Amino acid sequence: MKPGKVLVAQGGGPTAVINQSLVGAVLEARKFPRVERVYGALHGVRGIINEDFLDLTQETTHNLERVADTPGSALGSTRDKPDEKYCAEILKVLMAHNIRCFFYIGGNDSSDTLRIVEDFARKAQYDLITIHIPKTIDNDLMVNDHTPGFPSAARFVASAFAGINLDNRALPGVYVGVVMGRHAGFLTAASALGRKCRDDGPHLIYLPERNFEIGQFLSEVKSIYDKLGRCVIAVSEGIHDAEGTPILSSMLARTLEKDAHGNVQLSGTGALADLLTNAIRDNLGIKRVRGDTFGYLQRSFLGVVSDVDQREAREVGEKACQFALWNNACGTVTLHRVGHYAVEYRLDPMISVAGKTRIMPDAFITPQGTDVTDAFKFYLTPLLGSGMPDAFRLRAPRVPRILPGS
Amino acid sequence: MKPGKVLVAQGGGPTAVINQSLVGAVLEARKFPRVERVYGALHGVRGIINEDFLDLTQETTHNLERVADTPGSALGSTRDKPDEKYCAEILKVLMAHNIRCFFYIGGNDSSDTLRIVEDFARKAQYDLITIHIPKTIDNDLMVNDHTPGFPSAARFVASAFAGINLDNRALPGVYVGVVMGRHAGFLTAASALGRKCRDDGPHLIYLPERNFEIGQFLSEVKSIYDKLGRCVIAVSEGIHDAEGTPILSSMLARTLEKDAHGNVQLSGTGALADLLTNAIRDNLGIKRVRGDTFGYLQRSFLGVVSDVDQREAREVGEKACQFALWNNACGTVTLHRVGHYAVEYRLDPMISVAGKTRIMPDAFITPQGTDVTDAFKFYLTPLLGSGMPDAFRLRAPRVPRILPGS
Repeated sequence: MKPGKVLVAQGGGPTAVINQSLVGAVLEARKFPRVERVYGALHGVRGIINEDFLDLTQETTHNLERVADTPGSALGSTRDKPDEKYCAEILKVLMAHNIRCFFYIGGNDSSDTLRIVEDFARKAQYDLITIHIPKTIDNDLMVNDHTPGFPSAARFVASAFAGINLDNRALPGVYVGVVMGRHAGFLTAASALGRKCRDDGPHLIYLPERNFEIGQFLSEVKSIYDKLGRCVIAVSEGIHDAEGTPILSSMLARTLEKDAHGNVQLSGTGALADLLTNAIRDNLGIKRVRGDTFGYLQRSFLGVVSDVDQREAREVGEKACQFALWNNACGTVTLHRVGHYAVEYRLDPMISVAGKTRIMPDAFITPQGTDVTDAFKFYLTPLLGSGMPDAFRLRAPRVPRILPGS
Repeated sequence: MKPGKVLVAQGGGPTAVINQSLVGAVLEARKFPRVERVYGALHGVRGIINEDFLDLTQETTHNLERVADTPGSALGSTRDKPDEKYCAEILKVLMAHNIRCFFYIGGNDSSDTLRIVEDFARKAQYDLITIHIPKTIDNDLMVNDHTPGFPSAARFVASAFAGINLDNRALPGVYVGVVMGRHAGFLTAASALGRKCRDDGPHLIYLPERNFEIGQFLSEVKSIYDKLGRCVIAVSEGIHDAEGTPILSSMLARTLEKDAHGNVQLSGTGALADLLTNAIRDNLGIKRVRGDTFGYLQRSFLGVVSDVDQREAREVGEKACQFALWNNACGTVTLHRVGHYAVEYRLDPMISVAGKTRIMPDAFITPQGTDVTDAFKFYLTPLLGSGMPDAFRLRAPRVPRILPGS
């Protein structure tokens, strides 16, 4: 990196550990004399074109450490997906401030933005290091073993289903929990880690990697309910029919809000859970049917976090800075599993993750398509971190009945 | 108590600490030679009339301690609300098994059941001790300062809103979170404890103690949104219009499921959140509007618990047993605050809580009706327990803009 300023920004949905990456990059960058200042852009790329910068060189290390432990995007985030004109604006501002290194913490859309900015800088013969720092609760980045943010969200989902299973066992019925994940089912699949005993829920798991058919769904629910007298179901918000149309769109007439990327709004509404619980109630004649949409709790809940995730999120930020300052290299920091359990970080070409989506491999899904394999449980278990709460049952013997006719 | 058996049962909605009360009563009862056996009824009063008993005398102390730390009702629960005939059946079974002491852990409906059973036993000249052990996340029992189960649920709600506020600050918009509580707003009010800085959400809190009017609601949301560019709202599922009709019923045509008590189903559906977010979107023209229903997560989540709540739930179970065995007395165990912060337990007549509902006192609600007072925060803070997570912000200075026109 040429002498000048470092800029950090956060894009897309916040996670429980995205501030670890921010702080990892900022603290490391502040060590190098070549770095004149470390700026933070408010609300992602939007803050760049608006010149809304904080001077993070003047933030205390103590407070940065506290912010690192706080969920949400401390700099603010954005859903803007810059086109070429927008990226040209970004470069103009970077050049005006003599910013020589730009770290963008985000998912596959954010890496695509960096790819364009990097291309423009090269054409303008402006020395700029761009590094993408991965984060997403969806775990849908290519190349990576997993993505910072996902393990903490997975811990929330597994803990939630462990509790829901206890509740459902106490007051039996059917329960549908809708989990985030538009194209990749990793987070929904994490619900399986909430199970302990053989008859624990979730008893059925529906992923966007498989087509969803309502008739099949109802018969699978009936089969579990007939056997156990209860049924806990984990459903991805992204389930779709054989044509790829989201179930919510294909079954509801109401026009749904679409976001800037042209996607139908799936989160922040209870519509899918209500649609499925109504279908169960109306078709199977089961009385106690409940549905919850985990919504924003699963990515922002204060106090549920994986310490493994915290550690790795910190390191991807720190490594990004080291790749920039020591190696003078652009790219995306990627996370690789090199043991059970250990990881290594690499710098890969931006193009390897930019704009691409990784989904669950077939080896993680059972042939029936409504559960995960032991391979997936082996993959996810170390990521959930230490101190996962456990659930216990009474195992006292039954008392023989003594009244006639009972 | 006469020599014989002790029976414990759990009724109504599970909580994070209801098994502490179960284990407190069981472990204490097992110490007395007069107690031949300690039975647990499966699924509350339903398990009594079905003679579905576990012999908890044969459960290990070690496993009981593990179960105590597990949320949900380990014996199973029921929504049955026994009438006189049902209560006569209960007494018949108790007599057949020489059960001389019956502990029922539950809310105000459960205490009402005990009141009838106690009355029948007296008329039958059968020596029976009945003691109600309080629990409810709604915190709506009379006489008690607060009710075991509420503090842990309150901790969940406060932590959830603290996280939601960070998420909403990162990606500004309007957020509606719907919290349990049909008649009492204590749990919804707990959302206020998620705030730290002056502009933190929830910015508006709607309780069932006040009438809800949609036009007023929209103008209050608009006022906050115009000022802050965002708005986080906590809403009780029990909000109702001036006639006392739930907003969901009064605004939706669809016939809603009613439970055994003739109540409309408010939980386990996202309908209220969707109704309010649609109203905001349609009337205020705000684009990013999200709604979540906290649903069953708030009472069953594995791993979010108040240690103060655990302690007190354990003690009400233990005290129930001591009142029965040492004092030979019937009644309901009540919890009284005797310092900041210390509590004492008393035995009060069943009639003082049976079938009654406590709501939030006016002193806990601001005059405008959309926030809580410092008195409420002072009341709730010690209940949340130790180690509440905290949230921190960046406080670095702004960088002056240098580009022309910006």
